[in-house]
Amino acid sequence: MTRAATLVEVAPRDGFQPIGPFIPTADKIEFIRAADAAGLHRIEIGSFVNPKAVPQLRDTAEVLRATADLPDLDPQILVPNTRGVDLALAAGATHLAYVISASDAHNRNNVRRDTDVSITEYGDMVRALPPGIRLRLNLATSFDCPFDGRMDEGFVLDRLARLLEHCSDVEVGLCDTTGRADPAHVASLVSTCLRRWPDTAFLFHGHDTYGLGLANIAAAWNAGLNRFDTAFAGLGGCPFAPGATGNTATEDAVWMFRRMGVETGVDLDALIPLAVRAAAIPGAQPGGRVRAAMIAACAA
Amino acid sequence: MTRAATLVEVAPRDGFQPIGPFIPTADKIEFIRAADAAGLHRIEIGSFVNPKAVPQLRDTAEVLRATADLPDLDPQILVPNTRGVDLALAAGATHLAYVISASDAHNRNNVRRDTDVSITEYGDMVRALPPGIRLRLNLATSFDCPFDGRMDEGFVLDRLARLLEHCSDVEVGLCDTTGRADPAHVASLVSTCLRRWPDTAFLFHGHDTYGLGLANIAAAWNAGLNRFDTAFAGLGGCPFAPGATGNTATEDAVWMFRRMGVETGVDLDALIPLAVRAAAIPGAQPGGRVRAAMIAACAA
Repeated sequence: MTRAATLVEVAPRDGFQPIGPFIPTADKIEFIRAADAAGLHRIEIGSFVNPKAVPQLRDTAEVLRATADLPDLDPQILVPNTRGVDLALAAGATHLAYVISASDAHNRNNVRRDTDVSITEYGDMVRALPPGIRLRLNLATSFDCPFDGRMDEGFVLDRLARLLEHCSDVEVGLCDTTGRADPAHVASLVSTCLRRWPDTAFLFHGHDTYGLGLANIAAAWNAGLNRFDTAFAGLGGCPFAPGATGNTATEDAVWMFRRMGVETGVDLDALIPLAVRAAAIPGAQPGGRVRAAMIAACAA
Repeated sequence: MTRAATLVEVAPRDGFQPIGPFIPTADKIEFIRAADAAGLHRIEIGSFVNPKAVPQLRDTAEVLRATADLPDLDPQILVPNTRGVDLALAAGATHLAYVISASDAHNRNNVRRDTDVSITEYGDMVRALPPGIRLRLNLATSFDCPFDGRMDEGFVLDRLARLLEHCSDVEVGLCDTTGRADPAHVASLVSTCLRRWPDTAFLFHGHDTYGLGLANIAAAWNAGLNRFDTAFAGLGGCPFAPGATGNTATEDAVWMFRRMGVETGVDLDALIPLAVRAAAIPGAQPGGRVRAAMIAACAA
């Protein structure tokens, strides 16, 4: 059976979030429309988080409304807590991405409570969710934590098992929050998850901070995973860590899969100009290599 | 059995070669000494090519002499033809790397003759080689050719078979000359070579032009390969292709293997300052991500 890869475009949320200067709402909408036109139909378009903490994404409700006419777009909204869920549902969102950290230290840093408490709240939230709402569960620090270092695989699996007891019909994002996962680690956790929870859809969310973005995607793919988060222009770098780039660049992943003969449904020729524009957003810290390589190849 | 990875440092040849401003001989020697001190004992320290074509490497004989006192250093000299072999032997080299392209178009561009002619010349050279000289054979364009595009695997294997008929006790470098090899392609060719020629040592030489440097090393490693060419600071970009970076950065490969629990014998703390200095060489086009990520992590 021929396998295809699905890329979920996360630049409009994870990529734009750390950019200081406000990106005009009209520009955000234009980026989402262009990405959708290039074949990236699953897009994390924003987040309902405290606008004081993340002012860049304060216009998510407007962005959601303004892209509602795109027939192929499957817009996903990140929510860090039940208040975010309520706001997202009120804004008309039907596809939510809920985040919990496997590591207590990271979870406390993000949402000021232990992971156990977040798991209980997640269960309550799942049971209260109106019918027809699709849910994704992002397990942050699945591999490595900025505070606790490398995560024990058994510990991560136990926490995931407790989360999946609440609901197994969910897409789980195994998130390499720090970019420090390596291909062997990714292959191991992915293989175990696919074997243990055959009814659950899994996705890998990686960062290219240490240059392992594509290596980890390739490892996850070889282990049987088909879904990946990526960000055009490799946006998503931490503004407090100069040089630490962000998510794996969508254009790099598309290029790799194309060379491997794997269909992604993405038109690279349409994606490159969009990624070049995104890399030039004031305050952005772009990453990835394919933009420059393709432009150099054209000039040669 | 625990496997270790061997990295062959190629920045002093492949990395310095495209840099326009002449790197003072004393600086070249210092880089080689520092790399050796960091645990990189196999180093391609230069090349005997036409100094009109590659003026940067015109001081290879001097560099070879000036590093002869390092007891652990295994200096390797690149030679493109029999004249290069003669010059290298006259300079006292004992470890040669001979290059032949699998693709006729690339071979003609490099040495102005068809690959068939080069294979015959290679056989003559091998038979004339004095005893005690170690030989490496680099098969350029093993995966992709700048003129002919993707290389057919059967075609590459046939050419390699003819080369190995002359001498199978050789280290063969499978070279991704353009950086366009993908992990599936690398895994396939490597697996076939290891199965077909169990007595021959194989090595992978990759470029990070499209961001696949580490992904391809990981793929080759998983397919059973233990030896890899890398260049500190990711040097080796083509001066005629702005933004097209060069060899996979040694520091990125060391970092990845360390995370995977694989020993390389390289001291990353000693390597990073060296790579930072190399990235600042006037005219250099550095690549790789680990330098910036580690500096950012220190600053955070």
